[in-house]
Amino acid sequence: MNTDLQDYSHKRFNILTGEWVLVSPHRAKRPWQGQNEAVSNEVRPSYDESCYLCAGNTRINGEVNPKYENVFVFTNDFAALQTDSKTFTVDDGLLKAQSEQGICKVICFSPDHSKSLADMAPVEIEQVVLEWQKQYKELGDNDLINYVQIFENKGAVMGCSNPHPHGQIWSQTTLPNEVEKKDTQQRNYYNEHQKSILGTYLAQELEKQERIIFENDAFVVLIPFWAVWPFETMIVPKKHQTNISEMKDNETLLFAEAISVITKAYDKLFNTSFPYSSGIHQSPTNGQDNNHWHWHMSFYPPLLRSATVKKFMVGYEMFGSPQRDITAESAVKMLRNLL
Amino acid sequence: MNTDLQDYSHKRFNILTGEWVLVSPHRAKRPWQGQNEAVSNEVRPSYDESCYLCAGNTRINGEVNPKYENVFVFTNDFAALQTDSKTFTVDDGLLKAQSEQGICKVICFSPDHSKSLADMAPVEIEQVVLEWQKQYKELGDNDLINYVQIFENKGAVMGCSNPHPHGQIWSQTTLPNEVEKKDTQQRNYYNEHQKSILGTYLAQELEKQERIIFENDAFVVLIPFWAVWPFETMIVPKKHQTNISEMKDNETLLFAEAISVITKAYDKLFNTSFPYSSGIHQSPTNGQDNNHWHWHMSFYPPLLRSATVKKFMVGYEMFGSPQRDITAESAVKMLRNLL
Ligand SMILES: O=P(O)(O)O[C@H]1O[C@H](CO)[C@@H](O)[C@H](O)[C@H]1O
Ligand SMILES: O=P(O)(O)O[C@H]1O[C@H](CO)[C@@H](O)[C@H](O)[C@H]1O
Repeated sequence: MNTDLQDYSHKRFNILTGEWVLVSPHRAKRPWQGQNEAVSNEVRPSYDESCYLCAGNTRINGEVNPKYENVFVFTNDFAALQTDSKTFTVDDGLLKAQSEQGICKVICFSPDHSKSLADMAPVEIEQVVLEWQKQYKELGDNDLINYVQIFENKGAVMGCSNPHPHGQIWSQTTLPNEVEKKDTQQRNYYNEHQKSILGTYLAQELEKQERIIFENDAFVVLIPFWAVWPFETMIVPKKHQTNISEMKDNETLLFAEAISVITKAYDKLFNTSFPYSSGIHQSPTNGQDNNHWHWHMSFYPPLLRSATVKKFMVGYEMFGSPQRDITAESAVKMLRNLL
Repeated sequence: MNTDLQDYSHKRFNILTGEWVLVSPHRAKRPWQGQNEAVSNEVRPSYDESCYLCAGNTRINGEVNPKYENVFVFTNDFAALQTDSKTFTVDDGLLKAQSEQGICKVICFSPDHSKSLADMAPVEIEQVVLEWQKQYKELGDNDLINYVQIFENKGAVMGCSNPHPHGQIWSQTTLPNEVEKKDTQQRNYYNEHQKSILGTYLAQELEKQERIIFENDAFVVLIPFWAVWPFETMIVPKKHQTNISEMKDNETLLFAEAISVITKAYDKLFNTSFPYSSGIHQSPTNGQDNNHWHWHMSFYPPLLRSATVKKFMVGYEMFGSPQRDITAESAVKMLRNLL
């Protein structure tokens, strides 16, 4: 291990976005006198009559949720993207805008209001994975949709307004910023080397074993060298697959196992239901050659030192570059000890 | 005014970064059931003996602050960047890192613990501006420093750990991500048109008068067409100046007036000491031709609907693109009414 990386300020390059993160290892020692987050370790009931995501309950628009037993998907009642909105272009000097259409869905992971992915068995999580595959294919088949973003906001501190286990799927006509960056970086490498950059990186990490948290036959859970959030992690398929629909046979269950392992470790870290935003980056559904893509799922958790102290991505981070104190290598050790 | 922009989902192009923001005007109506922020409207004393930024007090490292009367600058006791740290490069397959050196300073805006910029008179704020100029020049003259980032985190919700009015200055050897993007976009336009892109944009906005909040002889306060945060604003000099050291004569006072006007309007908006991160983007101090730069100060405030409800930049925003509901044009009207 290169010890300079543990001792001195440096920046690390994100091969997938082409951007840098500033790392200041010596700064992890500074005291914290700022805002503490509220922690809610209240035990929730399995069914809450006031929850608009529980089975059998009525949503704000009057629709009644079915008595679902595994997962349940519906179109977001306050969708940021719609299929029937007007199309137009603004090209007025330096003012440039373009209409955007899309479909936003909500996916309930379980009818059990009290659970999170960390509390669900891999076979239950697999039901979520199978639904993600179905949604990716169905939405992708729609001519209007060229990209499908699957994500979850977990915890009040991540803007989640309902603790019922659920995620979202926003799909749209054009590629969002972050996807555009990863598309470019992956394409450039693939064109030059005829293999996926993430697959090549994964081989290097498996060799080094410095940032690996867990692996099974089909997946690796690791902290990427360029991670931004204190306990950011990534699940990467060992095979080169461009999107989640390529998972076959027992791979969906092995993916569910990887999700289960990392979310359980998170909950143990600060003895709290660990907040995060997670998301899957995968090939666009634009009908083009997307062989340069290697899909992956990332977790961006905000907590830094305890259940109540988070990392703030503010001033310098907003105007300069993301910045972290604790190194990826220290964070790996902490998470690995909790498996 | 193009009414499509007020009615239908669309994305707007940021001419300074080359990235897009998703705007969903119809979504502003959705109810909020999520986390509320704590508001502190407590009146603070002018002097707090436990504050490590108040004049005459002792800091954590044992140094004693002078009995300063206007502004006071010192090197951050827990600096993320240092001048004496080791230099090294990691170029190991797909692991790329590079040491980074720099100087981080803290600048107290006033000895009065109870104040914020919004409570200070323009002549007092001008003292801060004059110190920013001095620091930009001094740090920039250091061979180690090629970029100087001036910023402020205001409010506990923005990770500020001490309510004493203060900002920070992080200066470093290489250009951070956001500065790199703006450097490229401004350079491309300048090379093609031999004038600054921001100056050209400003002329267009002054003509339209749809997004202007305030102007004096030397500065304009506006909401940029591509603003991300609900009440994001920008202060732009009318003359083409590459950095703040070019302000002459009464321009420093006019800049202070612009800061005063927008921070006072912010405090009135939700009747609270309005949190934000602000920052100045300006030409690098790398000794190169930086004529393409047009400096500007931006405010990124997180509040959305009230003193307690903020906009969360989470799942979709982290994995896709930033997203906003209320349009720049609606936000301008609200702020303009408070002048
Ligand atoms: O320097 P401070 O006030 O301790 O820290 C604050 O500002 C820094 C620069 O934006 C951030 O990195 C920290 O997360 C934030 O808490
Ligand atoms: O869709 P929700 O849960 O109402 O909203 C949450 O997720 C969205 C997508 O990341 C964000 O735009 C919102 O700011 C956040 O509160």
